Amino acid sequence: MVATPEHPSTQSFKVIGTRPIRHDGYEKVTGRAVYGGDIRLPGMIWGEVLRSPYAHARIKSIDTTEAQKLPGVLATITHADLPAAEAKEIDAGEGVVNFRRASMNILAQDKVLYKGHMVAAVAAVDRNTASEAVKRIKVEYEPLKPVLSVDEATAPGTPILLEDLVGDHLGEKVQNTNIARHFRHEFGDPDAAFRQCSLVVDREFSLQMVHQGYIELHNATAMWEPDGRVTIWSSTQGSFGVRAQTAGILRLPESRIRVMPVEIGGGFGGKTVIYLPPIAAVLSKMTGRPVKMVMDRKSVFEGTGPAPGGKVRVKMGVDDQGKILASEVVIRFEAGAFPGSAVGAGGICVLAAYNILNTRIDGYDILVNKPKSAAYRAPGSPQVAFATEAVVDEICEKKGWDRIEFRLWNASHEGTRRADGPTFRKVGLIDCLQTARKSEHWNTPLEKRGLNGRLRGRGFATGYWMNGGGKSTCDLAVNNDGIVFMNEGSVDIGGTRASIAMQAAEALGIPAEDVRPSIPDTDSIGFTGVTGGSRTTYATGLAAYNAAMKLVDSLKERAAFIWERKVEDIDFKDGAFFSKSDPALSLTFKQLCAKLEGTGGSVTSTASVDLSTAGNSFALGICDLEVDPDTGKVDILRYTAIQDAGRAIHPAYVEGQMQGGAVQGIGWALYEEYFMTQQGVMANSSFLDYRMPTALDMPKIEAIIVEVPNPLHPYGVRGVAEVPLAPPLPAVANALHDALGIRFLEQPIKPARILEAISRNGS
Amino acid sequence: MVATPEHPSTQSFKVIGTRPIRHDGYEKVTGRAVYGGDIRLPGMIWGEVLRSPYAHARIKSIDTTEAQKLPGVLATITHADLPAAEAKEIDAGEGVVNFRRASMNILAQDKVLYKGHMVAAVAAVDRNTASEAVKRIKVEYEPLKPVLSVDEATAPGTPILLEDLVGDHLGEKVQNTNIARHFRHEFGDPDAAFRQCSLVVDREFSLQMVHQGYIELHNATAMWEPDGRVTIWSSTQGSFGVRAQTAGILRLPESRIRVMPVEIGGGFGGKTVIYLPPIAAVLSKMTGRPVKMVMDRKSVFEGTGPAPGGKVRVKMGVDDQGKILASEVVIRFEAGAFPGSAVGAGGICVLAAYNILNTRIDGYDILVNKPKSAAYRAPGSPQVAFATEAVVDEICEKKGWDRIEFRLWNASHEGTRRADGPTFRKVGLIDCLQTARKSEHWNTPLEKRGLNGRLRGRGFATGYWMNGGGKSTCDLAVNNDGIVFMNEGSVDIGGTRASIAMQAAEALGIPAEDVRPSIPDTDSIGFTGVTGGSRTTYATGLAAYNAAMKLVDSLKERAAFIWERKVEDIDFKDGAFFSKSDPALSLTFKQLCAKLEGTGGSVTSTASVDLSTAGNSFALGICDLEVDPDTGKVDILRYTAIQDAGRAIHPAYVEGQMQGGAVQGIGWALYEEYFMTQQGVMANSSFLDYRMPTALDMPKIEAIIVEVPNPLHPYGVRGVAEVPLAPPLPAVANALHDALGIRFLEQPIKPARILEAISRNGS
Repeated sequence: MVATPEHPSTQSFKVIGTRPIRHDGYEKVTGRAVYGGDIRLPGMIWGEVLRSPYAHARIKSIDTTEAQKLPGVLATITHADLPAAEAKEIDAGEGVVNFRRASMNILAQDKVLYKGHMVAAVAAVDRNTASEAVKRIKVEYEPLKPVLSVDEATAPGTPILLEDLVGDHLGEKVQNTNIARHFRHEFGDPDAAFRQCSLVVDREFSLQMVHQGYIELHNATAMWEPDGRVTIWSSTQGSFGVRAQTAGILRLPESRIRVMPVEIGGGFGGKTVIYLPPIAAVLSKMTGRPVKMVMDRKSVFEGTGPAPGGKVRVKMGVDDQGKILASEVVIRFEAGAFPGSAVGAGGICVLAAYNILNTRIDGYDILVNKPKSAAYRAPGSPQVAFATEAVVDEICEKKGWDRIEFRLWNASHEGTRRADGPTFRKVGLIDCLQTARKSEHWNTPLEKRGLNGRLRGRGFATGYWMNGGGKSTCDLAVNNDGIVFMNEGSVDIGGTRASIAMQAAEALGIPAEDVRPSIPDTDSIGFTGVTGGSRTTYATGLAAYNAAMKLVDSLKERAAFIWERKVEDIDFKDGAFFSKSDPALSLTFKQLCAKLEGTGGSVTSTASVDLSTAGNSFALGICDLEVDPDTGKVDILRYTAIQDAGRAIHPAYVEGQMQGGAVQGIGWALYEEYFMTQQGVMANSSFLDYRMPTALDMPKIEAIIVEVPNPLHPYGVRGVAEVPLAPPLPAVANALHDALGIRFLEQPIKPARILEAISRNGS
Repeated sequence: MVATPEHPSTQSFKVIGTRPIRHDGYEKVTGRAVYGGDIRLPGMIWGEVLRSPYAHARIKSIDTTEAQKLPGVLATITHADLPAAEAKEIDAGEGVVNFRRASMNILAQDKVLYKGHMVAAVAAVDRNTASEAVKRIKVEYEPLKPVLSVDEATAPGTPILLEDLVGDHLGEKVQNTNIARHFRHEFGDPDAAFRQCSLVVDREFSLQMVHQGYIELHNATAMWEPDGRVTIWSSTQGSFGVRAQTAGILRLPESRIRVMPVEIGGGFGGKTVIYLPPIAAVLSKMTGRPVKMVMDRKSVFEGTGPAPGGKVRVKMGVDDQGKILASEVVIRFEAGAFPGSAVGAGGICVLAAYNILNTRIDGYDILVNKPKSAAYRAPGSPQVAFATEAVVDEICEKKGWDRIEFRLWNASHEGTRRADGPTFRKVGLIDCLQTARKSEHWNTPLEKRGLNGRLRGRGFATGYWMNGGGKSTCDLAVNNDGIVFMNEGSVDIGGTRASIAMQAAEALGIPAEDVRPSIPDTDSIGFTGVTGGSRTTYATGLAAYNAAMKLVDSLKERAAFIWERKVEDIDFKDGAFFSKSDPALSLTFKQLCAKLEGTGGSVTSTASVDLSTAGNSFALGICDLEVDPDTGKVDILRYTAIQDAGRAIHPAYVEGQMQGGAVQGIGWALYEEYFMTQQGVMANSSFLDYRMPTALDMPKIEAIIVEVPNPLHPYGVRGVAEVPLAPPLPAVANALHDALGIRFLEQPIKPARILEAISRNGS
């Protein structure tokens, strides 16, 4: 069923590669766009949740009596009100769609597993009443020792978080463990190969949880109609995902739930899972009223899914010719309170940039008493890049090899076997490295000393992401004036309306502005997966391309009808329909659209795709920075992001993704972390204390797009949104080494840590 | 481009002919459905209009200064603010899409042409302020003599309403006339044929304007974005019609306007034209705010389009064998203030039930100082049926022929040439007449005397409507649980969601409940014409059928993929897919849907149709009534409606249409009229004074559905919603003649008129 498009890589495009104003720009900049928080419904009431004060405790009882007595309170619920609570038969293992676990995360069952874990919820006539009522719910806890790191979690005799967990350890079922999963990718004979190496570097790196830091708070408004249909408004990366997860947790048929389109104020992976919709829905069922819920910032930090912290050990050996002979990796990620960290993706990414014939990768998904981790741009890849690229940097330093040349000697290319198994199709790593080598930045020497004794350094690193495929639907309808209405199922986070419309426009030979995109509700468009995995421009774009080709076929029939010729005689090229046998017969797309009246009326088309693979992408970062040795403060002086975009549909948005990734990665490297007390309480759960980079912290980020078209897409699209987050972490660390001669093995590399290292090293 | 479906008339249906609960029933009965009047937007302000106090006057000046001074007033507009005001070049004749005339109707230009004609409009922060401001607009009028009937309008020296009108009189261009159009259909030699007749009856009938009387008031809310896009919420029979008309009047590209779906509280043809949307849009443009407008009932009566009144002369001659040899008809309809009455349709309908070889029909579209007439269920047909069926009744009376037998002798059938030209395909008139002859009602004698000297009579009449075709789009999308989401462009007035979903369900072999209909906005569905002309179940239904067939084709590919067979080996029958070569391989629709994951994902389809013809339909009415000779009050004792529905998709809704048509027709016959003063002021412009029938006035209406499948539709659908309004007018009049021996030539046959006739006849 997968389309097998031709690959017009040599053709010149008219729309692709241009930078039109985004179709939704006006609504966004004027504040007219409707986000989840904007929803107001007649008779609407408010829901609020009670959250656990303990990181780990047994729930002995929940008493909502006093809350219910408060005037204005209309309903209270606990986990027992979620239908999936006891649903053993739908416990399909510890995968991402384990609705029993999802249900336990949404309202705690017999235990609370992290500070901020939701325990009970209230619906009341207004938000203040709901907040007040929540305080009157009495919960009796038996506090347990919190488990706060992968080392603690795996130490002998440590408390077990999920007593019914059956771990999968290299295929064996193991009980009484906090290790939900241990997998291994092994290839060649790394042990033997290491013995042939002239240099082996072996380091373990430590990372903290970080949050995606989207500006918009999680929200949900739900209306449960007495006839069993549920309507949900919720800012999300995927309305069909909200539908599927809510249906699974509430044990409803998916088609009884209609998720309405609202805009999203940032997601970065964190809005692919749901928290509030099932609670709002059940409260609505109990009250017969629409129920709205909005988290506060503290709840977002404490109660939604950050990127996993953990430990990553990378051992790498080289010979004297600069060839990497072997590598061994151990990744231990903090899943949080429930199984399912990004460790699988980490295992795919960790060695993907290098063509190494002897490898062993062990991955561990480990439960800790922190919020259940979630996706965050190239989930798992920045963490492992932080490790691999520092080890590579150290090898180059010790061997005196050029950091780009060494990577070119070992770079993955078409035909390279990725450490977890698959073989690369055409990829752009070598092109990116060559671009970096020729770049103005790389060829501009950096003065090693700044003003007032500040120390400067330059770092370099690579990053990798495999990019998703999946299911998307796109519908097209033609107007008589040549304007094409486009419906697509993908939520627009970073310009999807524009990037999909542009692909349809290119295929139809019309301007981007002549395609008008809409994103309907889940009842009004075919199934479309989440906007994430950097799949959207690729997969929904291919659906749009296929729909456009169908539209062209239908319009050829109209041209044939008008000219009284066989449809086989009609061709379409450069935006015009013409007769092959009589070239005088020609109509542009717009001209033909004006003739739809009387030749059969409106023309519509639809296409759904289900793509199993996408184009792998690589990115590089070059980072110049300066350290104040008296304070430990780091200033980023210059950052260049280089990335194989496959084909940049809208280059400004690709550059925006690269720049945004760089900024988030720099923040991750230098500032951001879940700072946990020994009791497992996040001590910095506000935007004042959780230090995210601002415009004042950043220089202009240079973005260099490399185009190595993806052979799986008619326009060569690869995903672009995730991979730029991987290089900055190691690029910053490598630059700090260049400046200070110190290798930092812990993230974030914050001023206190730098000062401490300087004083330890006597720099 | 028109689909040419096979005609499975002998198959047994599983869904068609059943009576499922309508998909939108819950929203409708609980008040959750959103109508135009329910729209509230942030920052919304209100618009109000000033209406003319004169039926005919020249506007010398409009001064809005005082209105603008009132605090809270944000904008005022007059006709000069409508872009089509001076648009001579888009004056494409006096057709229905003459946007200059439409613009003049929406805001008067140099003349007001009827009492209630809109003259100026105001936008203000609230509705009361807007109403108050309207009163402060000073308009200087030069009153002119109003022209209030077709006779006055065509009398020598009468005032001319539209001084720039160029009338089309049998193809000749005529100036200085109130006759916008005179057409003639002529066939055979009626003059010669009349000379062979043994009896000729020649009568002229007079009718008053009547209103559709929908409960919901006209409304519009518009937001004109600064980037030129306009969003409109307005209860209408066709969102694409609102788009096209607003675009034409405001001279915008259609694709800049997005009409949002809202429910409609009755239309009956009257909500196919627009009044408020362009005013609200321009006020929004001027203020930058969303503007809402809602008419009051008086404005609906005075300022929207009623069914035309006028005069209809029918002359008919028969021989002694009961054959109608010749007929001559003159129809003069009140167009109202602008050209375009239903006289064309009247000319088609007036003799359609009879196979007459010598005919002449003259139609006149005549301007009078009354609101521009609009469509009302089978526009033009009830008026001409009132005439034709009375003349036929009189012929039967004078000749002593049975009223059903005579009609059978002369009934139109397959192959009969309709008086205006086309030849009938299979039609059901004879079947209906035979059904009437065998009906319990017809065979139950009526006691001629009631209690207290009341007089009873039975009337019989036929009616005809040609039913529309046109453009419709339907999209389908399958869920893994076998639920099919359906998007259709047709506004749902009388159960369209159900009737279209049922056709899709029948085609897919699934229950009606498994198809979930939605009606998206105009950006999100292909072009679909108005819900009117009794075209929707036929045309949108065929689009749904075609889309379902495409879906079946796509699902066959999936089955072939699963069973590793060629798609040619797969068949679909009785809701199941199976292998022709291995009957053991079989999957129901639902079972196959559960296997979409992994075989290519979601399946979607779309179909647009443009149908030039539809199935002609006939209806009959049998009416028993009783007259109080002392008061003239008429009580309907029993009414039976018989109608060829082609195929009744949802029989309960067909019966509802037949019953509703009967009630409206009885109201038209007995009570309803625009009662105009000599100054052209409607004296009864409220629901208290404009007498519509209520449940207390009506007996149970019996509905007998006759099914003569339409060969142009796969399920045999004909339109059903309009033709039932035609028989009641003459059936009531004929029953009154049966009771009183008096022929009433004027509608409404109100008590005063009955008393006067009784006293004149000395009954």
